[in-house]
Amino acid sequence: MLRCTRCGKTYPETFRLRCDCGGTLLVEREVYDFFGNLMPYFDARRYVQFLPVSGSLLPPPVPAITPVVELEVESVNALFKLDYLQPSGSFKDRGTWVTVAKLMEEGINEVVLDSSGNAALSMALYSLPAGITVHTFVSYGALPEKLALLQRLGAVIHFVDGDRMAVHERAVEFAEKTGLTYVSHWLNPYFLEGTKTAAFEVYEQVGVPDYVLVPTGSGTLFLGLWKGFTELKRMGEITDLPRLVAVQATGYESLCNRSPLKNKLADGIAIPEPPRLDEMKRALKETNGLCVSVTWEETEEAWEWLKRAGFLVEPTSAVVLAALWKLVETGEIPDGSKVLLPLTGSGLKLTEGI
Amino acid sequence: MLRCTRCGKTYPETFRLRCDCGGTLLVEREVYDFFGNLMPYFDARRYVQFLPVSGSLLPPPVPAITPVVELEVESVNALFKLDYLQPSGSFKDRGTWVTVAKLMEEGINEVVLDSSGNAALSMALYSLPAGITVHTFVSYGALPEKLALLQRLGAVIHFVDGDRMAVHERAVEFAEKTGLTYVSHWLNPYFLEGTKTAAFEVYEQVGVPDYVLVPTGSGTLFLGLWKGFTELKRMGEITDLPRLVAVQATGYESLCNRSPLKNKLADGIAIPEPPRLDEMKRALKETNGLCVSVTWEETEEAWEWLKRAGFLVEPTSAVVLAALWKLVETGEIPDGSKVLLPLTGSGLKLTEGI
Ligand SMILES: [Zn+2]
Ligand SMILES: [Zn+2]
Repeated sequence: MLRCTRCGKTYPETFRLRCDCGGTLLVEREVYDFFGNLMPYFDARRYVQFLPVSGSLLPPPVPAITPVVELEVESVNALFKLDYLQPSGSFKDRGTWVTVAKLMEEGINEVVLDSSGNAALSMALYSLPAGITVHTFVSYGALPEKLALLQRLGAVIHFVDGDRMAVHERAVEFAEKTGLTYVSHWLNPYFLEGTKTAAFEVYEQVGVPDYVLVPTGSGTLFLGLWKGFTELKRMGEITDLPRLVAVQATGYESLCNRSPLKNKLADGIAIPEPPRLDEMKRALKETNGLCVSVTWEETEEAWEWLKRAGFLVEPTSAVVLAALWKLVETGEIPDGSKVLLPLTGSGLKLTEGI
Repeated sequence: MLRCTRCGKTYPETFRLRCDCGGTLLVEREVYDFFGNLMPYFDARRYVQFLPVSGSLLPPPVPAITPVVELEVESVNALFKLDYLQPSGSFKDRGTWVTVAKLMEEGINEVVLDSSGNAALSMALYSLPAGITVHTFVSYGALPEKLALLQRLGAVIHFVDGDRMAVHERAVEFAEKTGLTYVSHWLNPYFLEGTKTAAFEVYEQVGVPDYVLVPTGSGTLFLGLWKGFTELKRMGEITDLPRLVAVQATGYESLCNRSPLKNKLADGIAIPEPPRLDEMKRALKETNGLCVSVTWEETEEAWEWLKRAGFLVEPTSAVVLAALWKLVETGEIPDGSKVLLPLTGSGLKLTEGI
């Protein structure tokens, strides 16, 4: 079922973004399955028994189980998860895959979303085999490479003159006017069900890290990882949750103190007013977590370091490394810690540079 | 050890491209390890005991185990392997990973290669963390998106005025003149050790297919799959090899009869004179295989079909589907067959279209 994060009201598992009270929703299952009994797949289907879909209607570009690579960084044990190795080039595919499976089950064939790029790319790709028409609202500042790909994938692109919040509002208005289904990944509870599978993989690959550093704008990966580790705890697989570190971009902080200078390089997390903010605060508290924000220059330096390590990613992916450097320097992450750094978006799309 | 495919002479496992007699080399191990005892990784490290490297020096961007997705195509059971979900965006990473590990073990830090794109991208990416300088020879016709990425990865690009064979010759000359190591993936026996891991994965994922359709130019994937399945047979894991189907581009056939019209869209396999041709013929014979070539138009139609199925790949990747359609129509592949179609290169790089 779905449960409201504000008033606790429950709903059946149909596609729905908000409670009647306006609160955001999370999928909740009364009985947790046994983790030891997984499906024999080396991809996201391995965890399908933990997902709110039947499994009989799944879009073909199935998300991969992505490698975790261990490197010594400033005397901590850094575990880079190459989560950009997904069919549309970002971790978003995890959430999209579950979402599109749900839309297929409900026979929904035309949807509206707003995205700075990767979420729309992912939705456009998975919607093609499902026969779903995608209206995506984007700002004029969107990267030309991503727009070209969106076009190739047949998405209907609506340009909006304004910032990220304006794009969001226009998409909502359009959905209301046309009666089409709005599939905001910011709100969509099924999206988090997909991103939570990253936690299951990490657990199978390297156990429970001490810290998990997550690029955090709308919180779709942050909350997905929180939910995944929380479910592992409920299943009795693990005893302690890892400490979650929300990594934000300066100028766009929602959890950390807002700084004046805007880090526009980390465009994937430039989301100053995420609708799931209360949940993110709760997850930070529950895991004894931290918030840290990084600047444009810090992001750029970390991005270059990642490239030299052989990880060809988008700038937004680099914020977690910049944050690690900071937290090691201040002593907030002690030497020898096991630190997970998910790398979220592929750099293959950025053929024109930044 | 390395064994010459022509005269049978053997060499120790150091980096070497040819026998003194000019023959190509294959890695050969006297005792085959037990397959049931794999490493606990969900990535290429799982198979490291079968590779001619120590395993203590591996470049960090480790190749992924890629999903296999089953779709019914023209009443055969088509198994699409999403092998483009690799750190540099192509299956080449499998071969590069083993090659660079070997180069690191030998302390080689400057190399020469010739590539139409993906092999060079892969080598440039894996060489960065290894501290290896890469000289790559390319034709003026190379895709601008791939050149931009190569530049970002710090490769030294040498342009050649001429066709693919001219590029090859200039690279060899340069290596001879400078004394640098030439790492042609066409000849390099360690490259095939990497691509053979795709067969191990397929075996664990879906068992042994009836047919394996492979884009075949220089034969690096074709021979890698042949070697992987052959080793599984020697280990006693399987009793019969799958039938290998070499899929070639019209106008560039080396195994099928040469057609007049050139399929330049499938640029990754536009290699009319591969040095391992005799081995490829032998592999076809051994597996009771087939050769089929596909045109530009057939490639384009299959490419579009793959996109609509949610597989965002390069045109070269689409030749296997075009071949499947043909072989089903002629009855050469009977209804109900289990057919593996590796999809080899990511479409994320092609932001400017074709
Ligand atoms: Zn409510
Ligand atoms: Zn010889």
